[in-house]
Amino acid sequence: MTDAAVTITDIEAAARRIAGHVRRTPMERSAALSDLCGVPVHLKLEHWQETGAFKLRGATNAVLSLTDEERARGVVAASTGNHGRALAHAAKTAGARCVVCLSNLVPQNKRDAITALGAELRVVGKSQDDAQIEVDRLAREDGMVPLPPFDHPDIVAGQGTIGLEIVEDIADVETVLVPLSGGGLIAGIAAAVKARSPKTRIVGISMARGAAMQASLAAGHPVEVEELPTLADSLGGGIGLDNRLTFAMVRDLVDEVVLLSEAEIAAGIRHAYFAEREILEGGAAVGIAALLAGKIEMRGPTVAVLSGRNVAMDQHARIVAGANGLEEAA
Amino acid sequence: MTDAAVTITDIEAAARRIAGHVRRTPMERSAALSDLCGVPVHLKLEHWQETGAFKLRGATNAVLSLTDEERARGVVAASTGNHGRALAHAAKTAGARCVVCLSNLVPQNKRDAITALGAELRVVGKSQDDAQIEVDRLAREDGMVPLPPFDHPDIVAGQGTIGLEIVEDIADVETVLVPLSGGGLIAGIAAAVKARSPKTRIVGISMARGAAMQASLAAGHPVEVEELPTLADSLGGGIGLDNRLTFAMVRDLVDEVVLLSEAEIAAGIRHAYFAEREILEGGAAVGIAALLAGKIEMRGPTVAVLSGRNVAMDQHARIVAGANGLEEAA
Repeated sequence: MTDAAVTITDIEAAARRIAGHVRRTPMERSAALSDLCGVPVHLKLEHWQETGAFKLRGATNAVLSLTDEERARGVVAASTGNHGRALAHAAKTAGARCVVCLSNLVPQNKRDAITALGAELRVVGKSQDDAQIEVDRLAREDGMVPLPPFDHPDIVAGQGTIGLEIVEDIADVETVLVPLSGGGLIAGIAAAVKARSPKTRIVGISMARGAAMQASLAAGHPVEVEELPTLADSLGGGIGLDNRLTFAMVRDLVDEVVLLSEAEIAAGIRHAYFAEREILEGGAAVGIAALLAGKIEMRGPTVAVLSGRNVAMDQHARIVAGANGLEEAA
Repeated sequence: MTDAAVTITDIEAAARRIAGHVRRTPMERSAALSDLCGVPVHLKLEHWQETGAFKLRGATNAVLSLTDEERARGVVAASTGNHGRALAHAAKTAGARCVVCLSNLVPQNKRDAITALGAELRVVGKSQDDAQIEVDRLAREDGMVPLPPFDHPDIVAGQGTIGLEIVEDIADVETVLVPLSGGGLIAGIAAAVKARSPKTRIVGISMARGAAMQASLAAGHPVEVEELPTLADSLGGGIGLDNRLTFAMVRDLVDEVVLLSEAEIAAGIRHAYFAEREILEGGAAVGIAALLAGKIEMRGPTVAVLSGRNVAMDQHARIVAGANGLEEAA
């Protein structure tokens, strides 16, 4: 069974619901990227969002959409980190119990951030799918409300509020570059932007190592891919073989998908640091990285969504010093 | 002649005047510093201000306070960089001509930032005082309106809006740590904070190399000090032998001044990067640095004002990699 696509009406409702609970993040023109690309390039500083990632928008919209009875049962999710952190924050604000299930691949700094926010942590298995089995058990046996990281209408609508802000700030935007993982962020942004500006092109960007949505689009249906270590670890994980919402939305709304090597992502992190004075996690630097790699056809005013800054800083410092991937970090 | 001290009424008026023109910057609790210090430590993220520094508040308040006739004549200032950048931004918004005079000590990245904002640049001599002579000439011969970086009531009132936000966000704040240079920032913050919370302690922090305000306080009147290269270059420069406003306000309102070595400032920059994921210029890291150095007596909830991020990134990368001062950067 498939959920109905999230609409601009859902996203506008989400914007009203989460206003005052999340930050309205700034848009800044990048002088360096505008010079390089020959078109105005703007950066949506969503990594300045509270909890350090865009995920707070969807999680807050989802928690605020719960009935009192659902809120009393508590929420549970599997997460590569940023969604778990965001959900913990949103649940704490609402006074709800929150359990976050994640795999052994998730770095320690992201685990600490979740427990610091008052959520319970369950570390299970070595993939997003293993963690999901524990979520299903807690929902079945304890009656907790599962809030998945991306494949849920309230999550997608919450992330879509970024799209509303993009067209508000850059009315003539021609191209929007969005990190692509499970598709919650890009589906929401695409639904908002295309409703307001149908001709604007939406480009999804993933790492070549384990791009589950790209493989699924190529196959015509959700498929599994092997989860591999990558600088863009926040984009890791599958889209779910039983994907109900984001696969269809991405297939219908996203114009193009670009894949990046680890070295290209590292270059994006370095540019963000040296030229923009921004600290980005790998998965958030992919828009900049795609521009630097010459993989985006230039048409006009371009926005790159910087989606998070929850990077292990020892790793970030190695990239700044010149490392081009995780393998050089050993 | 001395100007009357800036009052809370002036600062409240400035807050109304600049609302919508500057960012209301967030306050974030630092888990690492709170653990270390045994009291809640909060960071005022004023380095997220547009143009990358708090100076936009004072400059915007001053430009918006001009009469139409004054605005038509244009504004001129001497600046170690951040004020010039802020004034250029404020003047551009208001459609006024802006000339910025600065000394040879100011790094190239700060010069570029000013010209990119549409202001004219005059590089004169090797100290703030030399640049000031050119400002006086332009005021005298061309009729431009001089807007000094700190010693002006509208500038001080604009910076003071940060103090209003601090007590709004942390009602029980016991200690506020503020970078100290010419005193415009700390005078404004102290006037606002002491008006709302008289028992709150205001601590000014300078680099030991060329602390003009500290030397002036010790002498009981404004004195000149030699301007020396320092990691905290944005805190360099004299307070003016003819200081009219900030010397008296700092003397009357600031409880304590702390001086830091270059190595202590470098440690502050590294902590901001590794533990807080923030890029700070040296002059903005002094609050964190003073906490790390054990130079602040702990009393209760503490706020450190992070004032700017306009650092040369090659220098920042060397500090991150372990350098403890400019001399290791050669």
